[in-house]
Formats: sequence, structure tokens, C-alpha cells
Amino acid sequence: MSLNSAIPFLVLFHSCIIMVTLASDPDPVFDFCIPTTISKTTCKNSSLATVEDFVFPGIKHPGKFTETGFASIPVNVKVFPGLNTLGMSLARADFEVGGVNVPHFHPRATEVAYVLEGKIYSGFVDTKNKIFAKVIERGEVMVFPKGLVHFQMNVGDSRATILGSFDSENPGLVKIPSAVFGSEIKEELLEKAFGLSSEEIAKLRKKLTPH
Amino acid sequence: MSLNSAIPFLVLFHSCIIMVTLASDPDPVFDFCIPTTISKTTCKNSSLATVEDFVFPGIKHPGKFTETGFASIPVNVKVFPGLNTLGMSLARADFEVGGVNVPHFHPRATEVAYVLEGKIYSGFVDTKNKIFAKVIERGEVMVFPKGLVHFQMNVGDSRATILGSFDSENPGLVKIPSAVFGSEIKEELLEKAFGLSSEEIAKLRKKLTPH
Amino acid sequence: MSLNSAIPFLVLFHSCIIMVTLASDPDPVFDFCIPTTISKTTCKNSSLATVEDFVFPGIKHPGKFTETGFASIPVNVKVFPGLNTLGMSLARADFEVGGVNVPHFHPRATEVAYVLEGKIYSGFVDTKNKIFAKVIERGEVMVFPKGLVHFQMNVGDSRATILGSFDSENPGLVKIPSAVFGSEIKEELLEKAFGLSSEEIAKLRKKLTPH
Amino acid sequence: MSLNSAIPFLVLFHSCIIMVTLASDPDPVFDFCIPTTISKTTCKNSSLATVEDFVFPGIKHPGKFTETGFASIPVNVKVFPGLNTLGMSLARADFEVGGVNVPHFHPRATEVAYVLEGKIYSGFVDTKNKIFAKVIERGEVMVFPKGLVHFQMNVGDSRATILGSFDSENPGLVKIPSAVFGSEIKEELLEKAFGLSSEEIAKLRKKLTPH
Amino acid sequence: MSLNSAIPFLVLFHSCIIMVTLASDPDPVFDFCIPTTISKTTCKNSSLATVEDFVFPGIKHPGKFTETGFASIPVNVKVFPGLNTLGMSLARADFEVGGVNVPHFHPRATEVAYVLEGKIYSGFVDTKNKIFAKVIERGEVMVFPKGLVHFQMNVGDSRATILGSFDSENPGLVKIPSAVFGSEIKEELLEKAFGLSSEEIAKLRKKLTPH
Amino acid sequence: MSLNSAIPFLVLFHSCIIMVTLASDPDPVFDFCIPTTISKTTCKNSSLATVEDFVFPGIKHPGKFTETGFASIPVNVKVFPGLNTLGMSLARADFEVGGVNVPHFHPRATEVAYVLEGKIYSGFVDTKNKIFAKVIERGEVMVFPKGLVHFQMNVGDSRATILGSFDSENPGLVKIPSAVFGSEIKEELLEKAFGLSSEEIAKLRKKLTPH
Repeated sequence: MSLNSAIPFLVLFHSCIIMVTLASDPDPVFDFCIPTTISKTTCKNSSLATVEDFVFPGIKHPGKFTETGFASIPVNVKVFPGLNTLGMSLARADFEVGGVNVPHFHPRATEVAYVLEGKIYSGFVDTKNKIFAKVIERGEVMVFPKGLVHFQMNVGDSRATILGSFDSENPGLVKIPSAVFGSEIKEELLEKAFGLSSEEIAKLRKKLTPH
Repeated sequence: MSLNSAIPFLVLFHSCIIMVTLASDPDPVFDFCIPTTISKTTCKNSSLATVEDFVFPGIKHPGKFTETGFASIPVNVKVFPGLNTLGMSLARADFEVGGVNVPHFHPRATEVAYVLEGKIYSGFVDTKNKIFAKVIERGEVMVFPKGLVHFQMNVGDSRATILGSFDSENPGLVKIPSAVFGSEIKEELLEKAFGLSSEEIAKLRKKLTPH
Repeated sequence: MSLNSAIPFLVLFHSCIIMVTLASDPDPVFDFCIPTTISKTTCKNSSLATVEDFVFPGIKHPGKFTETGFASIPVNVKVFPGLNTLGMSLARADFEVGGVNVPHFHPRATEVAYVLEGKIYSGFVDTKNKIFAKVIERGEVMVFPKGLVHFQMNVGDSRATILGSFDSENPGLVKIPSAVFGSEIKEELLEKAFGLSSEEIAKLRKKLTPH
Repeated sequence: MSLNSAIPFLVLFHSCIIMVTLASDPDPVFDFCIPTTISKTTCKNSSLATVEDFVFPGIKHPGKFTETGFASIPVNVKVFPGLNTLGMSLARADFEVGGVNVPHFHPRATEVAYVLEGKIYSGFVDTKNKIFAKVIERGEVMVFPKGLVHFQMNVGDSRATILGSFDSENPGLVKIPSAVFGSEIKEELLEKAFGLSSEEIAKLRKKLTPH
Repeated sequence: MSLNSAIPFLVLFHSCIIMVTLASDPDPVFDFCIPTTISKTTCKNSSLATVEDFVFPGIKHPGKFTETGFASIPVNVKVFPGLNTLGMSLARADFEVGGVNVPHFHPRATEVAYVLEGKIYSGFVDTKNKIFAKVIERGEVMVFPKGLVHFQMNVGDSRATILGSFDSENPGLVKIPSAVFGSEIKEELLEKAFGLSSEEIAKLRKKLTPH
Repeated sequence: MSLNSAIPFLVLFHSCIIMVTLASDPDPVFDFCIPTTISKTTCKNSSLATVEDFVFPGIKHPGKFTETGFASIPVNVKVFPGLNTLGMSLARADFEVGGVNVPHFHPRATEVAYVLEGKIYSGFVDTKNKIFAKVIERGEVMVFPKGLVHFQMNVGDSRATILGSFDSENPGLVKIPSAVFGSEIKEELLEKAFGLSSEEIAKLRKKLTPH
């Protein structure tokens, strides 16, 4: 194997940041570990870290709204590298009137949600198919246990906002509608799984495949 | 401290079984911990444990088949108490010709599946909505990463069987169709999430609510 | 259920709740585990859990302010039992103008703080004695790595409020001034450790011992 | 920073593969992490991963039999890189009639064994020196708790096969006979430990040292 | 089920201490958890804990010597309950001249050994059968990685003493000679595993079965 | 191996050692992982590891004494690379007559202390501000729970020595006096936190800022 150019080198750097973050959610063995800013592949010498590495200013305003009237900004280790190895992350979620956060789950974290503003129908379904849902309001807290399907809808008459906290630096997000109908699972399997016709599946796929 | 009444005693027993199992998937601090057979609430003195506590004979034959031509038998700590605190469990899954294991996930475990018999279309969807699926055959192994949606369908012309292993004594199981459409999530939320009409949702709910 | 000898019962119950929560911050092996409401010692049968078990309404308003102009309400598993085994907790912290959250640390968690209102001088000190501090404002986020000393002060001209999230259901709190000067550590040791006279230590002890 | 030489690059690659796998058995912070195929040192960009990365076809047939009539194929992260960070692995074990899997243990995992074919005397010894052993047959499951010595022998009259699952991507394997007598532990120590003569130890060493 | 007597009660107590300790080696969720002294089944209210709960005076002198000239005193959670949930334990080991600590391993912990006195041949064998051994002296430290076989022998001309530390409150101990030859593993299996005759196995069993 | 462009090489090496150690305190997935001796950045091929990698001879004598009559030598992964991924470390602490180990804590570990020599006043403070302290002597053991403030003082009339063990390869150390008064926390905040005047804070800062 001969390597003459810097390109694989950069690729390597790109991959190394992955390695750094791999070790995160277990107990840390350092105070912190900030990936270097140029290469994003290695931890800064801790004497070069600055307070800005530990502050994230990017959720002062809502994100971009989707067709379901929902906007979210994840504050995970990808956008806030200071979280690396520290085992936590956040997300800001905004809802237009009637806006919906579709049924989804986080494969690697519990979520604790705090209502910053508004009235939100909010709930989750446990592994026995039992639903736990109610309308929560400004200042109230709801917990969604690790890995369970949950969902929200703004049922008030003004904007609503939620701050979610997670016990993983990269909790992951699986949105059920697109994961199931927008991911090219064999049509016949989906027909049997949901008891739908070929046409109905096709319609759902068309709507729910991300563009 | 004197205790004259047996009643609180029983209550205590009831609670203790929960405590025993709570501590399971992290590193064990005993060789093993078999819940007592009568009360199911406490660990047997290890000198009373027998080899039968560590052997499970109940997956020699398929379980009961569902309408989708699928039968599964979980071998978790609830049916095989010897797994308590040991961090693992199994499941046997049988498929009739064309049988389907609907899209589902395990909130607390990775799964490694081994094909005992047959040809199975098998796959999962990652958090970027990308599908990884193919037909696997007798003797082949496929891994489904922790918490990700996966699914299977017998595409051969005879019965098929899979043995799944999990890195949790109680991995949990969320079947997407019934969790989403069979759990009484607010209709309006589902309409917006899937782009379906009130009638379509009603039809899905009727079909997918467990009886 | 009737109980004729309530005293030992309470003793046992009291102790059992400890056992339940002991197993918490590692990976859960259940969807959730709500301690029973009457005895607080056992997990409810999950079919008896209700959505109220997963909602906490108690941080809509500030707590009681201390002499340093600071009020905090922990939302840990002791006050919000639904968090049991789920590995997370919150805290609301309010600051009067000039109010101070004294140097402290959480022995079992990282903290991610979100400014709900106001301008807060906020920072932490790493194990090399280096300080990371700055003024953060409404909508900004700061992370305090696991176990490191941190502190805050309202430097704006109106009330300030922070929402803290933790990756433990019971992160613990050690306030440095009272832990060191209000806990009856041998006087001579403190004199040598801080280079203070006997009179100076006596004065600090008097001020900083909790009443 | 300019880099003209490929040499450090290769060195780095060599080291990085180690780092990737180091972080594995704790909770993952990614969906998955496939080491790159050329260098085996970094994680593939997840968009380049294919279903083949998650399928292992190599245990359709038995491995090479040893003198004790035993053949095993580990399916750990070294041969099935898709397991990286996912916390699990498998092994296939085949036994000729009378074949023996010598007393051994896995320092980093519990094992759950499933009998694919045959009749196998199978057991383990706990830390109080108590044995748990019996003959298990096709379709039966036995669990070997983390780190305990276990062993197997085909006591049927035809080939036997077991599938073992582990809760580590790299459980490790210590075969007692060769670890103790084939590893150059000081002879005098072994004599005292086993109460054997110098000649007896020499004989065991000769037989049990791997060639 | 009716319970009229105190006997099952005591049994319960006996079992409950097991439950308390089950949750230990993962991250604690309390400052500490001292089992109650009378019943040994529940955690003391922390306000009743005393400094004596956290101090262990029982390794000032050697334990009782065995036939191989070795004496050890484990300081695990069973004898020092203050270690409960804190994830650590110790052991004192004394060696007569020529005394041997037979090949053994701890299924749930790494060990760090510190030589208090004497000259000790000390080593371990890795999973590739490679030995790492040398003579260590007063004030030197040696680490035995988690779950690997290790051993020691006093090669000096006076008593020797070692202090071992473990990263588990209950690391477990498997002594190879008695686990393999003193536990009633089927004779034929041992013959094949070690290449020994029936008579040789019988002799080893006789010597190595604990009385 | 020849290296012609050493500079980037060192940079990479420097960063890589961080990555290696990041993954340590969780369960290991290798027998061990010794950073390479030249570069200190990658794991040695295990066949190149030697017994010297697992032995540390550097705490036979006390370290350098401070003004408070205290000397400590940490034996963590930075000075004893063989500990990498093994989850443990040690420290030797020596006290002159009257010498003080100032109030401090380890953010990532429990400590178990063993008195090698002398009489030491030793204690910790829990999160309810309760002190647990007493004089311990040669051969006695005391445990300091994870993350809690603890302290020691030689109250005998000769040198004293303690050996501390930790359940982390890099437990971290926060000395309260210098962390609080020697780290440039805003003066006004400290005044309010400790109820001290500007002059008193200035005096403490002068004394307690490390040079």
C-alpha cells in the first residue's frame, strides 16, 4: 500500500473524530476532550481549550419548520463538540399551532422534556402497547423512557417550545413514518405488516420518503 | 426491632423480586442470582441452585403462529430466571412460507440473528433512513444494531427459523404497527404524521389494535 | 391489604425503596419502574402506572431564596419517582440580582445548563486548576463536565433562571463552602490547608455551618 | 501543517484500528461503526456501509478439528467487523463423537449456548467450586455465567454442534490446560499448586504446550 | 401461602442483602449504602451511618496459612459492608518462604498488587497463552488484567506480603487446581483435556478436592 | 521503521494517545492495551508487550513534600501505561509529622486507602454535609465514596504513609483550596459564597494560587 497524497490523510482525520467520540457515553477518563478545530480528529491539549468550547449559543431561535409545523435543533456532539465524552445532549423543538412531532424514538437515550412555552399533547407507548399521554404546559416536565416511541402535538393556540435533554452525547433519532415507509422496505412485507394494499403502501411511500 | 405479623413480610417479598432484576445488565457482582422458586422474589442461596436453573428446554418447537405467519418465543429472564444479572437472552422465531416479522425494535439491546433453517429477507434501517437488507440463508448470521428498526420475511418455499441473541436479559420489543396504530395515539396527530385521512387511520387502528 | 404492625413495615419499606433506586443509572432492564405510591418501596405493576407518574409539574415557580440570593429545586428521583432507573434528572435554579450559586459539584453527573432568563456569569475549574468562565445569556447552553467544581452569579439587572439537566437520577450536590467549613473537619487541618488562623477558621465555620 | 510522507500515516492507521475497537462493549454512541476495508483502521462513512458489512456467512460448516475431536469458529469483531461497538459476538462449536471442549472461560463475557445438534455433557463450576452439569440436547439452551470455568463433551453417538452467544464483541478465551501447563509458569510453582512431581509436570507441559 | 414464624423472615433478610449488593459495580446512585447491621438486608438511613462503617481493621495480621504456605484475607463487601455500591475491594496475601498462590483468576475484576514485604515471583498468562512474569519486590506494583490467570510464589528467604486492589466490590476467585480437579467434572472429559490416565486424574482429584 | 517527517507524526501521536485512553474505564475489549513506548500513541502488538509493561517500580520512596508536609505520587495511566483500559490506578501519599492532605476529591473514582505506616486522622463529608472521620493506623483500611470530599492529617509522632487505590485509570484530583481560591473565580462571587471581605479573599488567593 503506498500513499502519496494528503487526501487519505484528511479522510483519516475525518474518521478519527469518530473514534474519539466512540468512547463517550461510558464513564469518561478525562475532565473533557475537545476535538481539535482544524482537523476535527483529535482532542485539543486541555490547556488550549477555552470557555467557548463549553458554551453553545445556537438554540436561541427556532429551527426551520417542516410541513407538519415542527422545527427541531439537536444539540449533540456533532454540533457542540464540547459534549464529547460527557454523556449528555439537548434538543430544542418548536411547534406551530397544530404542529406535530411525529412518533419517533431515540435508540440510545432517555429524554426529559421541559415545556418552555405553550400547551403540548405529549406521550409515549410502552413495550406492552400501553399509551401514557396528556397535555403538558409551560414549566412542566415529562420523561420518555429509553428507546420507547413518543410523540407531541401543539394543542394550544400559539407557538409552543420544548427543551429536551438526553443521557447520551448522540442519542440518535428514528422517525417512524419515514423509517418504515420511506426506507424501501420490501413492499410485500409492509403490506402484510400493516394490512394495507399495494396502492396504499405506494401512497404512503410517496408521501413519507425524504427528498 | 420486633416483628409479629406476616403481612408486611409478603409485601416485602413482592417488592424484592423487582429489585433483583433491576440490577441486571450492568456488570454482575455475583456468579449468578437465581430468584427463589416459591416467591420469585429473592435469590436462592447459591448452594441450593441446581443445573436445571441454568438450562432452558422450551424452544425445541415453534411457538403459536400469528396472522402474519410468524411465531416467536422469547427466552428472557421472565421465562428463564437463570439469566438474572447475566446480561443476555435469546429468542426463537419461526416463519411460515411468506411469513412476516413486522418492523420492530428492541429498546435495550443489539440482536445477532442466526438462520437455523430457510431463506429469509432480513434487514434494518439506520437513523439516516438508509436500509440494509438482503436474503440470508441457513447458517448465516446478521446483526441488528442496538435500538434500530428491523424486519424479516420468509421468501423461501418452506418453513424458516431464526435464533436471535441479545445483550440484555430483557431487551424489550416494540412492534411498530401496533405501537403506532394500536395504542390510542390521538387520531389527528397520526393523520398529520402519516398524511392519512381520518378513515384510513380508523381502518389501520381497527386492524392493528391487539385484541 | 390490611397491616396490623405498621412500624416494622415502615422500616422495611423505608429501606426497600433504597434498594429499588440503587440499580438506576446503569442500563435499565425494564421500560420503567415506578415505586408504589403508598409505600414508596416497590415498583408498581406497569399496568397500574399512569401518565401522571411521568409528568412533574413542580418547577413552574422558583424555590425559596437563600441569603446569597439563590433558589434551587432539584427534580431528582426523590421528588419525581418516575425517573427511577431512567438515568436522568433536572434542577431549576433562580437568581436574584447579584445572586450566587456557590462553588459546588455533582459527584455522580455531568450537567448541561440552559439559560431560561437573564445574564449569568458561569464557569467551572478543571483538575489542572484552569478556569473556564463567561457570561451566558437567555437561550445559551453551557456544559459542566462530570464531577468538576462550577459556580454561577447573576450579573444582569433582573432575575435570572437556569434549567440544569443531569445524566444521573440522583447526581448529588456538594456545596464547597459548607462541605469544607460547615462539617466539623478538624480545625488544625483546615488552618494548614487554607493558611488561615484559628480565628479566621472559627469565623468561617460560624457563617457556613448549615442551621 | 504539511505532510509529505506516507510512513507516519501507516503507523497511525495501525494504531487507529485498535482505538476503534477499544470503545466497544460499553453503550455505543453511533448506530454502528464499520472499520474501513482497506486499512481496517477507521470507521467507514456510514453512507458507504452496505448490508454485507452486517452479514457473516462463515459458520455454515465446522472448523478444523483438534486432537480432542473439537472444532470451533469464533465470530467476533476480528472476523466480523460489523460487530464493532455493538457489544456481541458468536461462536460455532462442533464435536466429533466423544469430542471434548476443554475446561475454559471467557474473561469478558457471559455465554448462552444453544444445541444445534447432538447430545452434549455440558457444565460450569462456580466460585465456590460447585459444579452445575448435565447432558443437554438439540434445541436446549444453557447459560455459562460471566468468567466462570465451563466445559463440554459429546456423549451422543453422532456429531454434535453448539452455537454460543456472548455479550462482548471480543469475549476472550482462556483454555485451562494450555494456559496453565503450556505457558512456562515456573515449574516449582506448578508442582506445589497441583501436588505433582517434576516429571509429571514435564509430561503435562510437553503435551499441553501449543506448537 | 401463610407465614407464621420468624424463620422465613430471617431467610428473607439473608436474601435481601444479596439484592442490595447486586447493584454495586455500576455507577452508584447514592453517596453510599450501608446494609443495616441487625438484619444485613437493607441500607441504613444515611444519618445512622458512622465512620466505623467505612473503616476495616481486619487485615493487620496474616490469615490462616494453607498447605502451600499461603494465607489470604479478602476485604470484599461480604466482610466490609461499607464497600456496598462503591465498586472496589482489597485482599491481603501472605506467603511463607516458598509459599505459593496457585494459578487463579477473578471473573469480575482487574487486580493491582502492591508488594508490602518480600520478593515474589508474580505473573499472568494472556489469552494467547503468553506469560508475563518476574520477581517483584517491596514497594513494586503489578497489574493483572481483568479475568486473566495469574499466580505468585515467595522466592525470597523471609515472609512476603502483598496487598491486592480490585475494581469490584466482589471480584470472585477461581482457583484453577480445585476448580478443575476438585469439582467433579466428568473424569473422561478431564482425561482427554489434559491427556492424563484415569489413575492420574484420580490422584489429582484426591489431592485437590477441598475438604 | 524510519520516519522522515517527524513533526506531523508527533502531532498525531500526541493526539492519538488521548484517544486510546479515552475508552478505558468501561469494560475492556482486549486483554490489555499498552501504548507504544516510542510514540506513546498506539497500542503495542500484544506479542511485543513484556512483563515490564505491567510492573511499576516508582513508589518505593516518598515524592517531594509540599509546604503542608505532604507528598504524593499518582500511579495512574499517565505514568504507568500498562493500566490503559484496565480501570484501576494507585497513589502513594506520605505525611510528615502534622502533614496535611488538604480537602480534595476525585471526580471519577472511589478510593480505598490502606495505612502503610503511622497514625492518620482521615475522613470524608457526604452530600448532606455529615462528616465521617477518625484516626486510622497501620494496617487499617478506609473507603472514600466516589466523588466525595475527603482529607487526611498525620496526627502521630513519626512519618505516615498511605496507599490509595482507585477504580479508574485516571481518577482526577481536585484540591479544594487551590481549585476555589487559586483559579481566578470572580472575586465578588467568592466573597458572597464564603462571606469574606475583598481583603480576605485577596489574601487567600495569594496564598493558594499555584506558582
